[in-house]
Amino acid sequence: MPSNEGGRPLTYADVGVDLEARRKIVKRYGAVAKRASRPEVLAGIGPFAGLFALGSKYRDPVIVASTDSVGTKVKLAALVGRYAALGHDVVNQSVNDALTCGAEPLLFLDYIASADLTADAKVALVEGVADACAAVGCALLGGETADMPGLYAPADFDLVGFVVGVVERDAVIDGTAVAAGDLLFGLPSNGLHTNGYALARAALGLALETGARAADRERLERDEPALGETLADALLRPHRAYCTELKVALHLIKGMAHITAGGLEENVPRMLAAGLGARFRRGAWPLPPIFPFIQAAGGIDEAEMYRVFNMGLGLAIAVAPADGAAFQALVPEALEVGTVVDIKGADPTVAWA
Amino acid sequence: MPSNEGGRPLTYADVGVDLEARRKIVKRYGAVAKRASRPEVLAGIGPFAGLFALGSKYRDPVIVASTDSVGTKVKLAALVGRYAALGHDVVNQSVNDALTCGAEPLLFLDYIASADLTADAKVALVEGVADACAAVGCALLGGETADMPGLYAPADFDLVGFVVGVVERDAVIDGTAVAAGDLLFGLPSNGLHTNGYALARAALGLALETGARAADRERLERDEPALGETLADALLRPHRAYCTELKVALHLIKGMAHITAGGLEENVPRMLAAGLGARFRRGAWPLPPIFPFIQAAGGIDEAEMYRVFNMGLGLAIAVAPADGAAFQALVPEALEVGTVVDIKGADPTVAWA
Repeated sequence: MPSNEGGRPLTYADVGVDLEARRKIVKRYGAVAKRASRPEVLAGIGPFAGLFALGSKYRDPVIVASTDSVGTKVKLAALVGRYAALGHDVVNQSVNDALTCGAEPLLFLDYIASADLTADAKVALVEGVADACAAVGCALLGGETADMPGLYAPADFDLVGFVVGVVERDAVIDGTAVAAGDLLFGLPSNGLHTNGYALARAALGLALETGARAADRERLERDEPALGETLADALLRPHRAYCTELKVALHLIKGMAHITAGGLEENVPRMLAAGLGARFRRGAWPLPPIFPFIQAAGGIDEAEMYRVFNMGLGLAIAVAPADGAAFQALVPEALEVGTVVDIKGADPTVAWA
Repeated sequence: MPSNEGGRPLTYADVGVDLEARRKIVKRYGAVAKRASRPEVLAGIGPFAGLFALGSKYRDPVIVASTDSVGTKVKLAALVGRYAALGHDVVNQSVNDALTCGAEPLLFLDYIASADLTADAKVALVEGVADACAAVGCALLGGETADMPGLYAPADFDLVGFVVGVVERDAVIDGTAVAAGDLLFGLPSNGLHTNGYALARAALGLALETGARAADRERLERDEPALGETLADALLRPHRAYCTELKVALHLIKGMAHITAGGLEENVPRMLAAGLGARFRRGAWPLPPIFPFIQAAGGIDEAEMYRVFNMGLGLAIAVAPADGAAFQALVPEALEVGTVVDIKGADPTVAWA
């Protein structure tokens, strides 16, 4: 507890909040955000909120909004100082959520909260956010950095993102058209994306406790022959965004599931009406080596692995059989991974074929 | 670190993430969110993101977006179990930020992160969010609850909000029309709103450390004759929203500043062009008793108080002199608190008249 010793008056800076430092960093953010602008951003106005001129080019616009954080992936990234990659994570996961509805991402806001994150680390986070926004054509419209003395432990922080997208009402992808017989396509993930880190850390023995930090860092940065790279590289690769790949094929998509927390089992049903199930073919997509590595290290059941992790599939997409060839021609990376089926009674919604 | 003793396979639940509990609470959130809906919310679709049909009723819509958290106010509220009030805080502060641009709030998303917050506490937070949204006619469109074992200390959590509003482009309030001679009106705050809690806690000796929690709780819930209420009541009153009061008078407003972190000094310049300053009249608005109480307890300089806290003024509003009487007739609660002046050289931007 800060005190007011020697009669000097207590100040905000004494308790860990430095408004002058805050002013300085906001200027640095402003310079970084310019990397991710769009003509619709009304510059120079709206200092308490960001302003984006939607204009009159949409006939019947639907606003799509989503929020998520990068979870405990922050703890690993902080240990090895890879802040910018987290900025890509927080943008890409939200942009994919908006994409599942067919939306183009318009604008993004970030929220960073910590007790003692350095200004350089904060700016690196925002640089990652800005670069990821620019890569998908989304404006970085604003954000908030909260100094929370006492709420976050030293070196800990949280990173949260908000995305707003837009889609014409008659182009909304909502899964209502998905029917038995539809083909299921998948787009590969590049690793854990942003889910399952608490389990991965437990399995890998990365406690990240104060006393073990040096050993954990050494473990992360050591080459792992089974992975062909370091654990840090395998675990901290940013969540992929799929907007660019799918933009040209949205009109052929009947339903789309972003495979995040809860894996296929939890996420695929979100695009299926009652009475419909998904049957995936084993081996239809590559399993990135980090997953069997985590499974072996932790002695985790295969079923639990599929309940927690994406297991190599970043998106599952339902397409009418007649459109399958056209879809695959537009999205060469897409793999045919299964089919939509009728289910009844105790049939599982998601299962292997 | 959870272990895998006795040969039982490691699970996600072992490390503090319970997907089944998560499914259950999401259902409870859904029921609560119905309190704050609007016809534009496309129910039943968009499971990975919220969908809001903006439609074609706006000629030239500008999207206004803002994000903020309730800061370390969460620590005080958690100690005395007042979760719903925080829900009002997180909505009202963001809604006011959007209001400064003249925007009507359309939709809101919340983000809750914790290690061990109970399901009931989470639902109470969301109930507060939903009720506050309903009070300003805004839809609670979605949100995220993140389980972050290891990142948050027991009983600690963060609560973040994200608002999207809309305003016709020719009705954007951006301060560019503010000129010397304009009247400054103020709307009263009802306490600290959501800023300055780290300093207030230090001044009041509310350490909130594990060993001192019972004493802190007793201190918070004791009647304070100088306040005419308990410290908990004075400190945890929710941030006021000003949408309803100002909706009828937006067309008369040239610039608006939300008095948050940094007080008048930091926030009023955000609506003033270079070369303009604000001169406030001492005593022109009531000072809620909690401010002198904190100042005396902490031995804080008056200047520092005005740099950190809102000191009784929730919004500062610039209105042309010719419109002053009309504005006051439409917003009876508004107080005339100062004027906009020309400044030069070393003149302070914000000062007493």
